[in-house]
Amino acid sequence: MQHGFFTIISRSEFEDKLRGFTPLEAETVDLAGCAERVLAQDMIAPHDWPLLNRSCMDGFAVNARDAFGSSETNPGYLECVASLPIDKLPDIVLNPGECARIATGGVLPEGADSVVMVEHTQAMEQQVVGGTIEIRKSAAPFDNVMQRGEDAREGAVALNAGTLLRPQEIGLAAALGFESLAVRRRARVGILSTGDELIEVGEIPRPGQVRDVNTHTVAALVEQADGLPTRYGIVKDDMVSLSHALKRAIEENDLVLLSGGSSIGVRDLTVQAIEAMDDSEIMAHGVAISPGKPTILGRVGQKPVLGLPGQVTSALVVVHVLVLPLIRHLHGDPGAFSPNRRCLRKAELARNVASKPGREDYVRIRLEEREGQPPLAHPVLGKSGLLRTIVQAHGLAAIPAESEGLYANDLIDVWIV
Amino acid sequence: MQHGFFTIISRSEFEDKLRGFTPLEAETVDLAGCAERVLAQDMIAPHDWPLLNRSCMDGFAVNARDAFGSSETNPGYLECVASLPIDKLPDIVLNPGECARIATGGVLPEGADSVVMVEHTQAMEQQVVGGTIEIRKSAAPFDNVMQRGEDAREGAVALNAGTLLRPQEIGLAAALGFESLAVRRRARVGILSTGDELIEVGEIPRPGQVRDVNTHTVAALVEQADGLPTRYGIVKDDMVSLSHALKRAIEENDLVLLSGGSSIGVRDLTVQAIEAMDDSEIMAHGVAISPGKPTILGRVGQKPVLGLPGQVTSALVVVHVLVLPLIRHLHGDPGAFSPNRRCLRKAELARNVASKPGREDYVRIRLEEREGQPPLAHPVLGKSGLLRTIVQAHGLAAIPAESEGLYANDLIDVWIV
Repeated sequence: MQHGFFTIISRSEFEDKLRGFTPLEAETVDLAGCAERVLAQDMIAPHDWPLLNRSCMDGFAVNARDAFGSSETNPGYLECVASLPIDKLPDIVLNPGECARIATGGVLPEGADSVVMVEHTQAMEQQVVGGTIEIRKSAAPFDNVMQRGEDAREGAVALNAGTLLRPQEIGLAAALGFESLAVRRRARVGILSTGDELIEVGEIPRPGQVRDVNTHTVAALVEQADGLPTRYGIVKDDMVSLSHALKRAIEENDLVLLSGGSSIGVRDLTVQAIEAMDDSEIMAHGVAISPGKPTILGRVGQKPVLGLPGQVTSALVVVHVLVLPLIRHLHGDPGAFSPNRRCLRKAELARNVASKPGREDYVRIRLEEREGQPPLAHPVLGKSGLLRTIVQAHGLAAIPAESEGLYANDLIDVWIV
Repeated sequence: MQHGFFTIISRSEFEDKLRGFTPLEAETVDLAGCAERVLAQDMIAPHDWPLLNRSCMDGFAVNARDAFGSSETNPGYLECVASLPIDKLPDIVLNPGECARIATGGVLPEGADSVVMVEHTQAMEQQVVGGTIEIRKSAAPFDNVMQRGEDAREGAVALNAGTLLRPQEIGLAAALGFESLAVRRRARVGILSTGDELIEVGEIPRPGQVRDVNTHTVAALVEQADGLPTRYGIVKDDMVSLSHALKRAIEENDLVLLSGGSSIGVRDLTVQAIEAMDDSEIMAHGVAISPGKPTILGRVGQKPVLGLPGQVTSALVVVHVLVLPLIRHLHGDPGAFSPNRRCLRKAELARNVASKPGREDYVRIRLEEREGQPPLAHPVLGKSGLLRTIVQAHGLAAIPAESEGLYANDLIDVWIV
């Protein structure tokens, strides 16, 4: 009836151990599959971008000196010598006193260094080209002009290795002609559930039996970090079955999550099954977060194996706090463990929440929206084996390990989950 | 050289028009594919959950009356009559003065209504079952017990239609035995780029030509809202080509995004091509946001068609502000247009930013992290045709239409994009 002996370590100590795992190798992926992936090599610009000075407005290409000082009350007048095609290099040279009609994206002709927006001009004759244009606004060099090399310089790093590729970075890669990129591989995550009381979702529970909630919850969480979950289903909680299933899952994945094992016996079994593998080690057994204390971190070869608490709320907190950052780390994201990766909302706590010092507490929070004020944050209390508490909650509030709690009306950060 | 005549409408007027489109129909999807989808029908619990009163701790099942008032200094003593199996209905009845060893998840026997954690007990003899247990903590009814029906009641709605299925809702569906769910279909989004200056990513640009950045940027954005993008590539900007491509894209998708068309001529062509379709209508032409003003909203049959600005930054802002909410709305998310769907960070503005009243301005923001203070928000200025400004930015700050700007040291919300 004794707890197995283990030393509880802090969240940051646990994270340090997770950081020790090596990010996954690179693979070459078509641009269409690169969004939200992490660049594995510096992306070097093969040429300047823009290639040449281009207009970013519809208007008239001018030499800024010719339009300098022009205004509504004191307009300038320039002769329009051409209408420039958008997709060709202009074959004209702009002389003093001349301008040329130019569309957004058009290349500036020699002699032009600025664009006056069409809204600030007036054609004096029916015929624009060959006619006179009234310029009603002063121009400075490079007004409304995207300059050659402003986005990228030939031979220079346009995006560093380790950059998380958002839509805008995908755009820059497209602009520079990359049809594919070297990005880090996505983590294959094997999910096993243990516990003799577990049955498959499609089965009818007898009293005492519960359906395998954690496999499905944890798999959905893994997808939030773009991991690739494989559901191995329920493993009988004996050493032979667990060792066999664990061995296979480790072979087929980059990370294994052993969900379930909330009872002391199963926890011990998880530890024994990890220790029985070749080249394995228990790296941590217990972390000072609540819920989530009995989390186990093991290593088999170079692959992490985590034993998650069996209570679904505890498992959810552990996955959010520790496992999704680990997956992002395996994906090569240098900010994987940064709280900046969290989506937080400021909210006003509705009532006091006590917390035991010495552990980081994650309180489920329901937000009540209010007009013109931060939302009210109601703690959702209830047993961590219940789903209701996390279904009713909009997020989690972390109470630091050194704190004895939070007070009503405190403005807190709610981590939307 | 005149702009086509159109009336600019506000963002909220534009959103009202988007809200008028009908969410997509339901489809039945395996539980493994339901995460981040929206429930199309109420999910009715087929039975109570938990099925019976269950322990959420390792410890001893007791009748709370027998343990009431027990403490470290004044412990109670109960006879342990059984060790309950986790996966079976207990076949014993607890009499006064008795307790039974129970594991997390175990079903409480008749006569028990509370669980005392193992940490607050001491077995007095070597043999637990048959021996005496010292109870060192008072118990109240349902302490450490998940009660029958606490998560869901037979025949009652466990999750409402319109619920966005997070990992925890997937867990509840699993607990209740749903192997599949009726969820709204994901939107198929056709993406077309227009502009004769455009070339494919794999081609080498001649002066004046640019690679098709928007297709790839917009497709990556669409995936952020779980839309299913189809890239139709570059369409020549003449009426025949555009009409032909638009017709096909409308047939094959639920939403069509016509990207490009930044120049006035192409905008007019987009309008004409939409109007030329059967049962079509231009619903809006211009929205009071910057960048993004020349956005076009059309309808062909019951399907929305949007003409996005050609400048990549403008297109990105319009997609974030208007298109991703539309996609979420088509997915059935009742909070699709709520700013609560945004991931915001509080930051301190580094310098004044002016804004024209009458339009909502979206300023690109680069965040500088600081220890123990909100990050400093640096506006990233630059032409909206450049990628650099959005690649350097961490997010957007919205300046309300009625405001003339923001001031240095203002605490602002930065929308992480």
